[in-house]
Amino acid sequence: MRDNISEIHKESYEDIVKRAIAEDLGAYGDITSENIFEEDNISRGFIICKETEGAVLCGISLAEYVFKTIDPSVSFKILKNDGEIIKNKEKICTFHGKTMSVLKSERISLNFIGHLSGIATLTKRFADIASGYGVKVTETRKTIPNLRLPEKYAVRCGGGFNHRFGLFDGVMIKDNHILAAGGVSQAIEKIRLRIPHTLKIEVEVKTEEELEQAIKSRADIIMLDNMDCKKLKDAVNKIREELGRTCIIEASGGIRLETLEEICKTGIDIVSVGALTNSAKAADFSLDFE
Amino acid sequence: MRDNISEIHKESYEDIVKRAIAEDLGAYGDITSENIFEEDNISRGFIICKETEGAVLCGISLAEYVFKTIDPSVSFKILKNDGEIIKNKEKICTFHGKTMSVLKSERISLNFIGHLSGIATLTKRFADIASGYGVKVTETRKTIPNLRLPEKYAVRCGGGFNHRFGLFDGVMIKDNHILAAGGVSQAIEKIRLRIPHTLKIEVEVKTEEELEQAIKSRADIIMLDNMDCKKLKDAVNKIREELGRTCIIEASGGIRLETLEEICKTGIDIVSVGALTNSAKAADFSLDFE
Amino acid sequence: MRDNISEIHKESYEDIVKRAIAEDLGAYGDITSENIFEEDNISRGFIICKETEGAVLCGISLAEYVFKTIDPSVSFKILKNDGEIIKNKEKICTFHGKTMSVLKSERISLNFIGHLSGIATLTKRFADIASGYGVKVTETRKTIPNLRLPEKYAVRCGGGFNHRFGLFDGVMIKDNHILAAGGVSQAIEKIRLRIPHTLKIEVEVKTEEELEQAIKSRADIIMLDNMDCKKLKDAVNKIREELGRTCIIEASGGIRLETLEEICKTGIDIVSVGALTNSAKAADFSLDFE
Amino acid sequence: MRDNISEIHKESYEDIVKRAIAEDLGAYGDITSENIFEEDNISRGFIICKETEGAVLCGISLAEYVFKTIDPSVSFKILKNDGEIIKNKEKICTFHGKTMSVLKSERISLNFIGHLSGIATLTKRFADIASGYGVKVTETRKTIPNLRLPEKYAVRCGGGFNHRFGLFDGVMIKDNHILAAGGVSQAIEKIRLRIPHTLKIEVEVKTEEELEQAIKSRADIIMLDNMDCKKLKDAVNKIREELGRTCIIEASGGIRLETLEEICKTGIDIVSVGALTNSAKAADFSLDFE
Amino acid sequence: MRDNISEIHKESYEDIVKRAIAEDLGAYGDITSENIFEEDNISRGFIICKETEGAVLCGISLAEYVFKTIDPSVSFKILKNDGEIIKNKEKICTFHGKTMSVLKSERISLNFIGHLSGIATLTKRFADIASGYGVKVTETRKTIPNLRLPEKYAVRCGGGFNHRFGLFDGVMIKDNHILAAGGVSQAIEKIRLRIPHTLKIEVEVKTEEELEQAIKSRADIIMLDNMDCKKLKDAVNKIREELGRTCIIEASGGIRLETLEEICKTGIDIVSVGALTNSAKAADFSLDFE
Amino acid sequence: MRDNISEIHKESYEDIVKRAIAEDLGAYGDITSENIFEEDNISRGFIICKETEGAVLCGISLAEYVFKTIDPSVSFKILKNDGEIIKNKEKICTFHGKTMSVLKSERISLNFIGHLSGIATLTKRFADIASGYGVKVTETRKTIPNLRLPEKYAVRCGGGFNHRFGLFDGVMIKDNHILAAGGVSQAIEKIRLRIPHTLKIEVEVKTEEELEQAIKSRADIIMLDNMDCKKLKDAVNKIREELGRTCIIEASGGIRLETLEEICKTGIDIVSVGALTNSAKAADFSLDFE
Repeated sequence: MRDNISEIHKESYEDIVKRAIAEDLGAYGDITSENIFEEDNISRGFIICKETEGAVLCGISLAEYVFKTIDPSVSFKILKNDGEIIKNKEKICTFHGKTMSVLKSERISLNFIGHLSGIATLTKRFADIASGYGVKVTETRKTIPNLRLPEKYAVRCGGGFNHRFGLFDGVMIKDNHILAAGGVSQAIEKIRLRIPHTLKIEVEVKTEEELEQAIKSRADIIMLDNMDCKKLKDAVNKIREELGRTCIIEASGGIRLETLEEICKTGIDIVSVGALTNSAKAADFSLDFE
Repeated sequence: MRDNISEIHKESYEDIVKRAIAEDLGAYGDITSENIFEEDNISRGFIICKETEGAVLCGISLAEYVFKTIDPSVSFKILKNDGEIIKNKEKICTFHGKTMSVLKSERISLNFIGHLSGIATLTKRFADIASGYGVKVTETRKTIPNLRLPEKYAVRCGGGFNHRFGLFDGVMIKDNHILAAGGVSQAIEKIRLRIPHTLKIEVEVKTEEELEQAIKSRADIIMLDNMDCKKLKDAVNKIREELGRTCIIEASGGIRLETLEEICKTGIDIVSVGALTNSAKAADFSLDFE
Repeated sequence: MRDNISEIHKESYEDIVKRAIAEDLGAYGDITSENIFEEDNISRGFIICKETEGAVLCGISLAEYVFKTIDPSVSFKILKNDGEIIKNKEKICTFHGKTMSVLKSERISLNFIGHLSGIATLTKRFADIASGYGVKVTETRKTIPNLRLPEKYAVRCGGGFNHRFGLFDGVMIKDNHILAAGGVSQAIEKIRLRIPHTLKIEVEVKTEEELEQAIKSRADIIMLDNMDCKKLKDAVNKIREELGRTCIIEASGGIRLETLEEICKTGIDIVSVGALTNSAKAADFSLDFE
Repeated sequence: MRDNISEIHKESYEDIVKRAIAEDLGAYGDITSENIFEEDNISRGFIICKETEGAVLCGISLAEYVFKTIDPSVSFKILKNDGEIIKNKEKICTFHGKTMSVLKSERISLNFIGHLSGIATLTKRFADIASGYGVKVTETRKTIPNLRLPEKYAVRCGGGFNHRFGLFDGVMIKDNHILAAGGVSQAIEKIRLRIPHTLKIEVEVKTEEELEQAIKSRADIIMLDNMDCKKLKDAVNKIREELGRTCIIEASGGIRLETLEEICKTGIDIVSVGALTNSAKAADFSLDFE
Repeated sequence: MRDNISEIHKESYEDIVKRAIAEDLGAYGDITSENIFEEDNISRGFIICKETEGAVLCGISLAEYVFKTIDPSVSFKILKNDGEIIKNKEKICTFHGKTMSVLKSERISLNFIGHLSGIATLTKRFADIASGYGVKVTETRKTIPNLRLPEKYAVRCGGGFNHRFGLFDGVMIKDNHILAAGGVSQAIEKIRLRIPHTLKIEVEVKTEEELEQAIKSRADIIMLDNMDCKKLKDAVNKIREELGRTCIIEASGGIRLETLEEICKTGIDIVSVGALTNSAKAADFSLDFE
Repeated sequence: MRDNISEIHKESYEDIVKRAIAEDLGAYGDITSENIFEEDNISRGFIICKETEGAVLCGISLAEYVFKTIDPSVSFKILKNDGEIIKNKEKICTFHGKTMSVLKSERISLNFIGHLSGIATLTKRFADIASGYGVKVTETRKTIPNLRLPEKYAVRCGGGFNHRFGLFDGVMIKDNHILAAGGVSQAIEKIRLRIPHTLKIEVEVKTEEELEQAIKSRADIIMLDNMDCKKLKDAVNKIREELGRTCIIEASGGIRLETLEEICKTGIDIVSVGALTNSAKAADFSLDFE
């Protein structure tokens, strides 16, 4: 898995890590550890997985960055990379350094790993099903505020793909846009005249009529919202007939693990799932001293 | 419920809201809405709950602040306050203003409400059980990075109480501290000499021996970690015998809704639950145009 | 012309204005005006165009924002809007307020108007020619560092269109990409598997061979770099034959006002011109007291 | 040429470079290069001048800083220093490192070098003429917003000198100050009582009467605004007669390369030229792979 | 007294006030007042002077700004302005608003008023003596880190004048500069060629020889460092003889209230006193509820 | 003395140092030194104490950090640590590096050392007396705005202890709280229900009645405000009788060196002294070249 924390993205992550440290340590630090331990107390240990069924790791570089930001003199060795499947009780890293520094880093780094691995693990369960049908799984814009970038990375670690990053880098015409513009065709015509020629146009359709307009206006992507499998199937057929494979077909709305396979069979290209990022349980990891 | 977004805390929330807006709108804005609608297109609508079993609301002021930051000219009327129980399909607010501004605010404000109401709703289920036994429910430091402050607020909205805010405003001596200091008594003696006299000392104990030392050193708070109800009961008795009610007793570690009532019956004062903040499902709310 | 300074973009502009004020006033202010004038000295005046051949206005809202940031009590009345053609000696705004505040605002606001109107005015000369052939004029990424957003706005004010905003919101495969990937086809195949499905793929081609690969791989946009009109014409024909109008054709590289018309006649859709943003002369505007 | 990017100024430049990177890469990076190349793809190349008549280099350290900020592991070797005259097709630096990192750095570093070398090159043309007469060439406060510091550095690289940095570090009494204070003498008397004793007083004069008052009040610097050579000559004589060389004489207002020599012959000490910073054409440099 | 907090300087002060609030309230606020009082508890009161011998007020606008930042709904009425002499037990302002907000504002605003009024009060004692001899009293660069701007303002409030603001807006050649440049004359010659023509040159001299060089090189300001009154007198005579009044004479180094008058009698123009800003006792003010 | 500048606190100090540098060097640097010296001029020297009676050192790491921030290539050797007693004319550090960099660092580093050592030195005079009676000396919240953290560190260097850091990490119920809540008991009861169980409750009492209520409500800390020694003695006796040593007793209000010993004899645990931080004279240190 390409490690997104390297290079330029680093700055976005640095900011998130520093704020996480700031909310835990305040301006005054860890009053417990700083007042029990001396500068020369040293500890050695590891972080292990505590999920009975294992987890897909995500956030190991962030954890390392937490340790290094708090104390660059701590040595931190990565044993497992983001995207790897970790079994229960497997170690993902070891560390060695000032006791005081390690204890400050513990909860903050675990909070990152737990949240992001939770997302990666859930995504993998979706992706394992969908990939059998050549369907890509993506997240939506339903992300935890301030964490969109790492959460999208977690989706990739779990074998998913990314949708647009925000409102600024992709056009998506939804029900309210359609309403206010007086119809799918009008909305598409209007926006085509104004946006940079480098952008695609995606349209969300709920009804047959909207679908027809989207096809007629040659939308680049058609998103079929909250349709049952029968309707999905019909829509896919109609789009393929008219536009062939130049139009990308996305399904969205309440898609669960239980219904995923059937949805994939309808011939769509993409499923987008909000729950990947806003409702995944934290994966349990723990820091132990040797 | 006291609205923490007022006054000085505002600044902390402002920062979180602005970053949430920045990650969605970038420097270039909502290319869809800005290119379909004109400055004088106006919309009117509301946000409603879409949880069949209802939800405890949290984040309505943040949602208002999202709308107002994006466009101060939008009028936003709060119908329900944080801490209120919202039924399925109940409206929590109405708005009226530029279509463009409303569409920019939609997903960002729903992401705040969904995440925080999810926490408040889960907390309430715990608090409803515990309060019958005079036991307070608190969160832990297992919070989503960067969101600790609003998440702690969500816990209060759900009827919970707050534990320390971070490493800087409360002393908690845990297993590793004990190990490195050579025992509970030594750790407590050492720290008492150094910390401001305004702070309490909490000790986490896992064994009978640690418990005895904690009692002997007159810890202000004793946290009983991962004990079954039998052990909890014995520990509570021992503490009450020696220190009466001057010592606060907290239980923690894997506490679930199913086991909560039995735990409360052991006579403890506090239960602290990590899952409240790191594993709550988002509550479903939706923005509709009239 | 849609005023981009309103609403969410405001924040980006605020930052630029505040830094412009900071570099001129430092922490210590305008030592000349503050020490000559008293708080109750009031002035009244206007800003006028001093270009013999007129100019396309851009930056009037930024100028207003400079005045208002320095002193909210100054009244500032906009007479001309961004995008309007201003004749020599025409007034574009009037002001009335503290002498001290007006003098602080003078140079900073004129620097914004001068630079941006210079770009808008130059763009209009290109756009007037190109629009007759249904060709759009866009800027490139050759912008003055830190001013990309307002400069792109200035291009729109002059009747131009925007290209991608940066490296993050559009794919453009250039010569070096092609070299390293082993050819146009390989580069396109590889990137298609990885990028969000919402993005288009643009390829820059210099040779006939590259052009053929770009066509075969069905690039969404083909940019013909530094070709003379004969080669441009041939390339356009080939693309239209194979891909019809689903492929957008862009010409770029050393395009000057003198050569523009002939280039437009080749049937391309877009010309992109670096000089619009990095080599436009400032338009001359001046602030006078009544 | 003293490299201003070293030491304390570094911080000002860092900020400008980081914002330049941010506007090009956003939070999401270079979606083209990151998705075509792998971490181990390496490139080697150079930046060369593409101006037929050569250019005065300015910004090589900024370019290096762009490369190093984006990826510290890239090696970047400076071949030419700021202030040197570069011939067409001469290399100014070489680099060697990750393809991905180099491609991200390309346009941003060229934008800095192009803009600043354009200013340095234009300044040199003025300075070459003026220096023959012992006259110094300076820029004015007509700088591109947010770039005043590097632009002033570019002026020095081209053989020019700097005027005051802003409103805070030098007193300049201009027409409107004179008007409102009731005359040159009154303005000078008033300001002398209030400003730190460490500052000089400069007065802009347009008429003979103003000139006489400026002389009588013993202004430290007299700026002769928009006068033809005859008037300039008379003014210089009068000042030298009354104040000798203790008063510095500056000419300003519409000074062009064509008129510069004649102006210098009038005996002035300084010419200040707004066009140096707000109307210089970018110098053309290009990045090539070996 | 001109209120420096108005207009553009506001931003510098805002930053200082916000950091002062942040260090007292943290992210979590005033846990005492917020948990005792309700939103509708209102208080009314005033701030009074508690210095037996009175004080010169400085900081009332900062205090108001503290109140308004913490809670804009509190009404705050200024009764005395900066620069006024306040008698013991005199009220300087009244307030009326939420109890909670007032209690948060109390200590922070008093800390500003106490520190700055302490400086203004001490300055006035120096200025009262010096002004009788036409001598100006200024502070030095010996200011409390981060508070230079308000401290310089406090000096003005006490009837003093300001020296240069920092290393960037005034030239001062001191002993080490002289040593390294090989003498006063060499240092002055060198620097004259390089600095903007708008700046004056000040030289610090300790010996007769240095004085002679400073005179010969026509320094704009000569600072006589740590000389007794006899030496001061001789130096002043020599300077006046050679340079008349075009050279400003400053005395500095260990000047105390006790020695000030005699020093002023030597004919100098300026005394600069480090103790004004780094050793003034806080003036005692107190906030009382009605 | 534990050096608080290490590790996580570093960030708070960095910010303070950077702002101190910014206010002295502005964006434009040290125009004197930069224009007299060349990059290869090197100096060597030291900082020495110039207090006849010596001083307690505080701030040496901040001084080092100033030097290193301005120029990392300067070598800086610490000879004395914070908390050590420095005799007149003793050297505390040596340095060796660019003349230009050293001269920029001089005043800024001396301002830190002078202010903080002044506080440490004054604290030591209090602590030397109090420690003989087992009484701890602490500062209050009367700190110089923006410098609370380093000032609290200076108190520890002088042998003092710290009180709460701000309003957020300790509960203190003062006269106005008591008034508005209707009495000491009511205030304590109310707050106990709401604050995190990890915090202690301190009450300030001025009268016998308030004292009795504080005892009855079992306050964790009782602060006796502005009482003479007789009243202090009585209060201590009453508290010890009722609550034994579980209640901490603090004296505050106008405590001076002259009265300290007698106060300590009353049996209190803590004295808190505002003058330590807001009225200490700067300690005199000076930088000399070899």
